[in-house]
Amino acid sequence: MSGTPCPLCEGEGGLVVARTPKFRVVRVVEGDEARRFPAFYRLIWNEHVAEFSDLAAADRHACMDAVTAIERVLRAELAPTKVNLASLGNVVPHLHWHVIARFEGDSHFPAPIWAAALREPPADAAARLPLQRVDAAIARALSGAGL
Amino acid sequence: MSGTPCPLCEGEGGLVVARTPKFRVVRVVEGDEARRFPAFYRLIWNEHVAEFSDLAAADRHACMDAVTAIERVLRAELAPTKVNLASLGNVVPHLHWHVIARFEGDSHFPAPIWAAALREPPADAAARLPLQRVDAAIARALSGAGL
Repeated sequence: MSGTPCPLCEGEGGLVVARTPKFRVVRVVEGDEARRFPAFYRLIWNEHVAEFSDLAAADRHACMDAVTAIERVLRAELAPTKVNLASLGNVVPHLHWHVIARFEGDSHFPAPIWAAALREPPADAAARLPLQRVDAAIARALSGAGL
Repeated sequence: MSGTPCPLCEGEGGLVVARTPKFRVVRVVEGDEARRFPAFYRLIWNEHVAEFSDLAAADRHACMDAVTAIERVLRAELAPTKVNLASLGNVVPHLHWHVIARFEGDSHFPAPIWAAALREPPADAAARLPLQRVDAAIARALSGAGL
């Protein structure tokens, strides 16, 4: 690796809502992303690997089973218009999956969150969503799944 | 579903490089995306489902095993700076995974491909890459994997 410290090795990367020996799940709670997309979660692999294909098959399956569990909680609790999944890592090449509940009327919909905003986000976007209930449901889903 | 025809039910969605009973893999060969990101593949699920979590576990695992196989071919053949994976579907809610080889110096790196361009793409970006060899290697990898 280069000499640059990795922010996902040095820090949690968000508000931790679940933790397993292999990964943690955080909610993005800071900055514009959190304001625009309040139900924005990340599964962050604990070990510093860059690419999804660096994982062994059992770890890949466990990783995506957890991403799926998060997606299912978002759908059950929030009924989003769409869930977006992405593992990019161009800036921080430490494996992490974005799991984002998208809503018609959010600042970017139907564009990806990384595109230019199409409108101002609703002022009370976060307040409308039962985020602590979602956090708790994700924690339960992951502990129940034995991941 | 709404009355709007789905472009991924009506058409292939790109140049087909591999096909299984459950999904196909295409290379994006048209438009700005292909010019800017020549090694841009999509795994398109054949059945019209919107979300990854709509799939049964065995299908999800097979789907991501195939995404991983594509990623590994891109890494082996092209040594990209990073591989980007994403399933968004806000505009076309028919399950498809983007698998994109990213290179330092491409028009957007390190930004996501959906963000504003940072520079002009190299004029010969596509010509530099052995895309037909990559297509063939993906086809081999998926047929060999029994997916």
